[in-house]
Amino acid sequence: MHTILKSNTKEVVIGADKPFVIIGEKVNPTGMKKLGQALVEQNFDYVKHLAQRQVAWGAEVLDVNVGHPQIDEVAIMPKVVEAVLAAVDVPLCIDSNEPKILEAGLKLAPGKPLVNSVNGEEKQLATVLPLVKDRGAAVIGLTIGEEGIPATPEGRLAAAGTIIERAAKMGIPIEDIIIDPLVMTVGHNSNAALVTLKTIELVKKEYGVNISLGASNVSFGLPDRHSVNSAFLALAIQTGITTAITDPIKLGSCIKAIDLLLGRDANSMRYLKYFRATEKLRAQEAAVRV
Amino acid sequence: MHTILKSNTKEVVIGADKPFVIIGEKVNPTGMKKLGQALVEQNFDYVKHLAQRQVAWGAEVLDVNVGHPQIDEVAIMPKVVEAVLAAVDVPLCIDSNEPKILEAGLKLAPGKPLVNSVNGEEKQLATVLPLVKDRGAAVIGLTIGEEGIPATPEGRLAAAGTIIERAAKMGIPIEDIIIDPLVMTVGHNSNAALVTLKTIELVKKEYGVNISLGASNVSFGLPDRHSVNSAFLALAIQTGITTAITDPIKLGSCIKAIDLLLGRDANSMRYLKYFRATEKLRAQEAAVRV
Repeated sequence: MHTILKSNTKEVVIGADKPFVIIGEKVNPTGMKKLGQALVEQNFDYVKHLAQRQVAWGAEVLDVNVGHPQIDEVAIMPKVVEAVLAAVDVPLCIDSNEPKILEAGLKLAPGKPLVNSVNGEEKQLATVLPLVKDRGAAVIGLTIGEEGIPATPEGRLAAAGTIIERAAKMGIPIEDIIIDPLVMTVGHNSNAALVTLKTIELVKKEYGVNISLGASNVSFGLPDRHSVNSAFLALAIQTGITTAITDPIKLGSCIKAIDLLLGRDANSMRYLKYFRATEKLRAQEAAVRV
Repeated sequence: MHTILKSNTKEVVIGADKPFVIIGEKVNPTGMKKLGQALVEQNFDYVKHLAQRQVAWGAEVLDVNVGHPQIDEVAIMPKVVEAVLAAVDVPLCIDSNEPKILEAGLKLAPGKPLVNSVNGEEKQLATVLPLVKDRGAAVIGLTIGEEGIPATPEGRLAAAGTIIERAAKMGIPIEDIIIDPLVMTVGHNSNAALVTLKTIELVKKEYGVNISLGASNVSFGLPDRHSVNSAFLALAIQTGITTAITDPIKLGSCIKAIDLLLGRDANSMRYLKYFRATEKLRAQEAAVRV
């Protein structure tokens, strides 16, 4: 199954027979003070820098989130979308819990954007899915039900089913739904990653849809998070995720290596190309810092 | 199925329900000039250093290989085994293609050692398995047949079967056979890792034995080998390998993270302990270098 996203001129295809798609996570002020400050000051140069840098490091889609206590998010979302588009031409993933903020972003996002996210709660289904349908967008469905995040893979599968069925009733094609099975930190619960991996397996088998993860949550509260994040990406990609909202600078090499190992990169062409490009970027960025 | 290895006082259990076992690869002069030189000079301090360092970084078993063009390997093997045992008390993996060299090492190896390796060729089966049987050792069986390394998973499964059946006829218990499905570099063949992963699946399903890999071969000839090696370990462990001959300094963190993610480390105890221990080691080793 192929989920197709579009910018003005570019098309990105997400699917199990395609290279893994990185959705760059960095245009998001949560826990990123410098970006929060820039947005408060309506200084968009830093947004442009983040957009450009992530695409240079291999992001094919960019997540745009403007959640910040000191910001009028409905007003600022279109400006951030414009800033990103002034810097790069890639499909966008408009990220908010609030339908109004999503709407503000979707109006300006070109082509076919991705909405991040809806979940299985009635209130969310009823407000977010109509926006997705009207805009002809794709949407990430989080496996959350009325009772919160189910503890079991079967519970999460059921939440995915709720979203997929409701979307179908509204005429949203199933290939425009990307399910996010969610992952909690293994620092609190040693079974957390296994539950997510099992959910991926079930959702893939039952619906065959594309599956995404915000993968770095898995290592929250642990030291040496990179070892955990990169290992988890390998496990999750082997199990069936086809895209992730993540940091291309930290995890791009790991993802290209996984594509190569899983036979999705004939003659290592993309692996080698990525290595050469990022080797150059690393040198340039080091030179700027000196 | 549990493969049990022993030193004088320590027991190491390899099995799917146990933490992953690292067999330290560094006592091997192949491609390691400094060790080759030390062995030629019969200076064993460097061997002791390598043994100690690998165990400090998490190796539970040590591979001992003395292959070098300027060395009388039969004469030097016992001395290297003695040097390793003077430094650490862990089970050993005696590594050679030559039965005479294996024999020389097995005589001095304490407890229950591992033999690395036999393969499915008649000549090897007939000469190595009797040594294994007489010594009461365990053995790594490489999936190589009379025609070399089979290109297909089914061919490798058949080679594994040849070894397991011959060992059974000689009265070697199946739990003392560890199959190595072999991996070639993905730099030459994009399907190389997939063939190995599929072989792991088949061997696990058919025989349920422990499975090992010399994992770093997968990245031969590629840049940024660490990204490929660590991703491949994650894929291979998820698929079913239970031990690997590898570098604990480079890959220990990755392996501890995989154990944690696969639910084999309650409350992250071993992950955190390893992080703290290696953080200290890193600081000590950096201080020595200054």
